[in-house]
Amino acid sequence: MNNHTSASPAPTRPRVVLIGCGFGGLEAVRLLSSAPVDITLVDRTNHHLFQPLLYQVATANVSAPAVSGPIRHILRREMRRGNLTVLQAEVTRIDATRRELLLDQGQALPYDHLIVAAGATHSYFGHDEWQPVAPGLKTLADAFNIRARIIGAFERAELCADTAQAQQWLNFVVIGGGPTGVELAGALVEIARHTLPDEFRRIDSRRARVVLVEGSDRVLGAFHPRLSESARRQLEKLGVEVRTGCRVTGIDHHGVTYHDAAHPEQGDQRIEARTVLWGAGVAASPLGRSLAETAGATLDRAGRVVVEADLTVPGHPEISVIGDLAAAKSHGKSDPKPVPGVSPAAKQMGRLAARNLLRRLRGEPAVAFRYLDYGSLATIGRKSAVVQLEVPAIGEVKWGGYFAWLFWLFAHVYFLIGFRNRLIVLFDWAWSYWTFERHARVVAESAQEPKDAPA
Amino acid sequence: MNNHTSASPAPTRPRVVLIGCGFGGLEAVRLLSSAPVDITLVDRTNHHLFQPLLYQVATANVSAPAVSGPIRHILRREMRRGNLTVLQAEVTRIDATRRELLLDQGQALPYDHLIVAAGATHSYFGHDEWQPVAPGLKTLADAFNIRARIIGAFERAELCADTAQAQQWLNFVVIGGGPTGVELAGALVEIARHTLPDEFRRIDSRRARVVLVEGSDRVLGAFHPRLSESARRQLEKLGVEVRTGCRVTGIDHHGVTYHDAAHPEQGDQRIEARTVLWGAGVAASPLGRSLAETAGATLDRAGRVVVEADLTVPGHPEISVIGDLAAAKSHGKSDPKPVPGVSPAAKQMGRLAARNLLRRLRGEPAVAFRYLDYGSLATIGRKSAVVQLEVPAIGEVKWGGYFAWLFWLFAHVYFLIGFRNRLIVLFDWAWSYWTFERHARVVAESAQEPKDAPA
Repeated sequence: MNNHTSASPAPTRPRVVLIGCGFGGLEAVRLLSSAPVDITLVDRTNHHLFQPLLYQVATANVSAPAVSGPIRHILRREMRRGNLTVLQAEVTRIDATRRELLLDQGQALPYDHLIVAAGATHSYFGHDEWQPVAPGLKTLADAFNIRARIIGAFERAELCADTAQAQQWLNFVVIGGGPTGVELAGALVEIARHTLPDEFRRIDSRRARVVLVEGSDRVLGAFHPRLSESARRQLEKLGVEVRTGCRVTGIDHHGVTYHDAAHPEQGDQRIEARTVLWGAGVAASPLGRSLAETAGATLDRAGRVVVEADLTVPGHPEISVIGDLAAAKSHGKSDPKPVPGVSPAAKQMGRLAARNLLRRLRGEPAVAFRYLDYGSLATIGRKSAVVQLEVPAIGEVKWGGYFAWLFWLFAHVYFLIGFRNRLIVLFDWAWSYWTFERHARVVAESAQEPKDAPA
Repeated sequence: MNNHTSASPAPTRPRVVLIGCGFGGLEAVRLLSSAPVDITLVDRTNHHLFQPLLYQVATANVSAPAVSGPIRHILRREMRRGNLTVLQAEVTRIDATRRELLLDQGQALPYDHLIVAAGATHSYFGHDEWQPVAPGLKTLADAFNIRARIIGAFERAELCADTAQAQQWLNFVVIGGGPTGVELAGALVEIARHTLPDEFRRIDSRRARVVLVEGSDRVLGAFHPRLSESARRQLEKLGVEVRTGCRVTGIDHHGVTYHDAAHPEQGDQRIEARTVLWGAGVAASPLGRSLAETAGATLDRAGRVVVEADLTVPGHPEISVIGDLAAAKSHGKSDPKPVPGVSPAAKQMGRLAARNLLRRLRGEPAVAFRYLDYGSLATIGRKSAVVQLEVPAIGEVKWGGYFAWLFWLFAHVYFLIGFRNRLIVLFDWAWSYWTFERHARVVAESAQEPKDAPA
């Protein structure tokens, strides 16, 4: 090996390997980098992604580099300490018996301690054939794909000689009423009604229909029912058709069929639409299965790894699982409660896993994870949002509307990685707020709609 | 058809169709939009691209939306006049006999007047098998591809256990010593020596080799020999190995073979390199062949359409060809001179073709094209450039170095479309100038190096 730095770690240092540089992995690396350990961080991509703003890339409001940053650059200070190696590779298998990982380049990577923060992907509830028709939003590539489909749909509508055909291209269905679905639906009506009018001659972009389909009886189910009701009203005011209690039974290149629980007598109903976006299910990374096979871990229904109170795999104190891949519980004063799959939880798990690892190295006992819930935020279109905060000594505070949106905006900009990105995103937002423009409305040729999609 | 605007043009207006929204097409549309004609602009993509700065996207210095803009948005004022339709589609064939175009969606588009501004693509001089190995730089997709390869090469080097293998990933060959090749080579050494050091542990990014291979005896052959010499010195000072008089004879996934005219006795020489970029040949759009077949047009060796003095196709006064697809001559006081394939020439052709079209509608004779050469600029790395200007009454002025670079910078920002892009690009440049950072260093998963490339 070609170690050119003079600060190469002594080979006796414990080898810590981290998989994934999301919110949890990044926190863990930062804490560990000042400890006497030799760290290797492995990620499939070259960037950390600020996922809460990914829908803004998909809806052409900000460019990709504004909500993501090269891992090596984010961790440049930690790298100067000389004990951190970053590798861009895909981990194909975890072998807990031999204590090593297999990388897609064929190499094996041995570890003494392992933190798995491999995250989650989409779940189509057993209907994997829906995936190419109804893309989800987890990665930058997903965002470019969705952006190309949205922009492309209006272009295809303008090409149609037939009004009915054009309307099919102007109909959009968003499946799933969680934060991602609500954000996408809100941005879609904004594009149709504020950004694009007057830029087409054969179609009227304002005639676009945006339908949000949700299986349960309300949107933003993680929020208080009062805020769900507020969100629904705000969506409908923007122009989104909200259909709760509707279970999707089929998706194809021409539309969506669904079953309306409130009107079972009507049987399967149909929306003709050429663009369907998926914001519904989440499935844990397939690396969970690797841990089940070689470390005897138990997986829950969503494929997440059931972990001990200290976030380690039962029987394997050298392996921690954090973030969306962990089925973790919060151990507070009351009974243990499940931890939600949100970024603050991932960050807190990352910090605890790192601290427990260092405690174990010092011979101290590990401590249990306790999730501090500061509240939740979700945005709806260009100037409304819902906010639900846990304020110490006061309790839960919740409100919706314009000031909730301002709060959401500053909270998100604050947590964006890197001063430069904060500045750029604020500028992009201020610009699009005043002009209704979406400056990132360009589609690279390779990201165009697949040619094999039926015309 | 679903014409919702009340300002629909009367059907008796002449139908003008434009193919391509590059520099020439955009100028022509702008002039024609205030005339009593019905215009349809067809482009393959949804954006106008400021090609002179595309290498900055490829080398991760600016994001794609900063150097491109949606065609509909750029032409929004013209669209409000009610006589302009923009269609995103690929023209598969021009039928000059029936006076119609065929679009990839199967539709036919009739015209009374046609302006073809379909531009150019890469030419591999009969070696099309080099294309997947050595990508060229014409489109945003090309830029993302090159960006992914450059960033990915350093990542792959870091993964190598073997020093010799790592060095192959750290060797870069740029083929072609024109402006694109010179810009790419300069940016590559900058990335290796200023942006990436300290961000890797197994490799030293400063050990990257950048070799610029040019077939003729000097770089920037369109400039005065004194400036070519200046550019060569500046490149070498940056750390680029410049090999002029070297003709490439082979390219594969592991390197480039070439023949050095100065040392024929050495036979074919070889550079081991995993990343090869192509900045050499230009071939006219294949639509030229369509004009040869149905309008009897003559094509030159590069596939360009030989046009009359007024830029029309001989025998077809209703068809004009402009920009990189036209083999045009400038008709000044002296003998006609060939027009170079640069953006100012394309813009001037666009304006003349539009004016001649309007003259013809009024029954006036068309005028001959005269190219006004204001000079040429090329940049070399982060703070040097060469400038060659034609100043009225003084003649040719030429200089190289830092002030040439400042001149280049402001000239390019000035010509960027749209106030917003100018601001963003200036900010991006100022930022990277002071910090050596390249903020757009993120690679989306879909743009990663193809999996089938040999490891």
